[in-house]
Amino acid sequence: MSFAHEQRVYIEDTDAGGIVYYVNYLKFMERARTELMRSLGFGKNRIFNDGVMFVVRDVQIKYLGSAMLDDLIRVTAEPLEVRGARFIVRQQVWRLGELLTDANVECASVARSNQLPIRMPADMREQLTALINKE
Amino acid sequence: MSFAHEQRVYIEDTDAGGIVYYVNYLKFMERARTELMRSLGFGKNRIFNDGVMFVVRDVQIKYLGSAMLDDLIRVTAEPLEVRGARFIVRQQVWRLGELLTDANVECASVARSNQLPIRMPADMREQLTALINKE
Amino acid sequence: MSFAHEQRVYIEDTDAGGIVYYVNYLKFMERARTELMRSLGFGKNRIFNDGVMFVVRDVQIKYLGSAMLDDLIRVTAEPLEVRGARFIVRQQVWRLGELLTDANVECASVARSNQLPIRMPADMREQLTALINKE
Amino acid sequence: MSFAHEQRVYIEDTDAGGIVYYVNYLKFMERARTELMRSLGFGKNRIFNDGVMFVVRDVQIKYLGSAMLDDLIRVTAEPLEVRGARFIVRQQVWRLGELLTDANVECASVARSNQLPIRMPADMREQLTALINKE
Repeated sequence: MSFAHEQRVYIEDTDAGGIVYYVNYLKFMERARTELMRSLGFGKNRIFNDGVMFVVRDVQIKYLGSAMLDDLIRVTAEPLEVRGARFIVRQQVWRLGELLTDANVECASVARSNQLPIRMPADMREQLTALINKE
Repeated sequence: MSFAHEQRVYIEDTDAGGIVYYVNYLKFMERARTELMRSLGFGKNRIFNDGVMFVVRDVQIKYLGSAMLDDLIRVTAEPLEVRGARFIVRQQVWRLGELLTDANVECASVARSNQLPIRMPADMREQLTALINKE
Repeated sequence: MSFAHEQRVYIEDTDAGGIVYYVNYLKFMERARTELMRSLGFGKNRIFNDGVMFVVRDVQIKYLGSAMLDDLIRVTAEPLEVRGARFIVRQQVWRLGELLTDANVECASVARSNQLPIRMPADMREQLTALINKE
Repeated sequence: MSFAHEQRVYIEDTDAGGIVYYVNYLKFMERARTELMRSLGFGKNRIFNDGVMFVVRDVQIKYLGSAMLDDLIRVTAEPLEVRGARFIVRQQVWRLGELLTDANVECASVARSNQLPIRMPADMREQLTALINKE
């Protein structure tokens, strides 16, 4: 079972097409990634203390269905691959049993001071890797 | 004639009600304030060099009509009052002859280093004041 | 005790000043208003069935402090005044004991069909009014 | 030469990392796609009259560099492939000679009435196809 974060769709998330504005699914996914990291002990304070920062390098996302106002959605975050300074997370948005979007998000760790690539903290790498092996 | 900035309404600005999401008018207004400041010579670089930063302290906004997708709107920015560390700008959003929103936005200058109130650069105060007197 | 809704601040909510982008507090407040209405039985479906829609007519908001990334905030929604086709909600954003923003938001009920003012459902008016009297 | 649309980066586009929030590049790209369509005669009114609506089905985006507050960026929109009910647009964001993001965006035409796939208007397909052949 991959990590999942429940979210509510508010009017701010929709557009004049009457559905969620497709760009906003990336926000939903980032919230879930953030909560995954927090659940592993890597909230903002820990990450700041390590002088590291994560930037998104690559996103591949497919839109299969549409969430609507007031929907309760379930956003997953499942590490697929972890290297020294990068990791890929698979993320899906579900409404009940319906898959609405399916994405791979690649994040890189960079130094907060100069934005150059830097290895992520060892225990973060270990924990993310452990999530892969558990499956 | 007050300063005005033309903007286009895109799908990102709308909501499921089929009209512009009311919160976004504040973004339109900030764009116009930013362009007013740039037109006076106070783009980002100048402001950063002065070690100052502007924060919004108070907004009063009335919604009278609704902009829609693809509308071309005209957003005004007209200084109403300028003090040492604060200024109030009146801002309106128009679509042709129709007034859609009418707001007063109060901004304060704070030091970039510690966020404490600080007097704005003298030439900025003078230029904003000159705009008031011209009317 | 007024209704309150807890929310987390994500990176999407911040700006280059390092704090929450002031416009986004209005989104936080709308989420809390929506949850207040849902708690009273007026979720999207009920409101749609009544052929009514709510639009914001007037906002007065004061910014007193700044929320930051990862903050857990508490957003209140407290009806102040209820008339046939309008109501005013006082909304505050708190981080622990610190008041960050304080606003009055006036909403009007309009017909979904033609956007003209229309009385809100009687039981909604009664429930909102009951919240005022309870205090 | 592909179609390009100049845009300014405002504070609303940035995040606490001090750079443009990566999700917002998709908004920049949609603005450029919209302007490309408008330049071909397919503004909102024309598209509405045809009973058609476009939805994004797939995005692949690489982040190579970061735009910052006040940057003037150039967003391209270049059709790569056009079929009956779908087209793929390559979109890049440039700051002077620096490529910041590079994406392929696949859009599908659906009927406004029921959201089912529908062929796009013939003249739209022809014009988008002509742009490919011109290169």
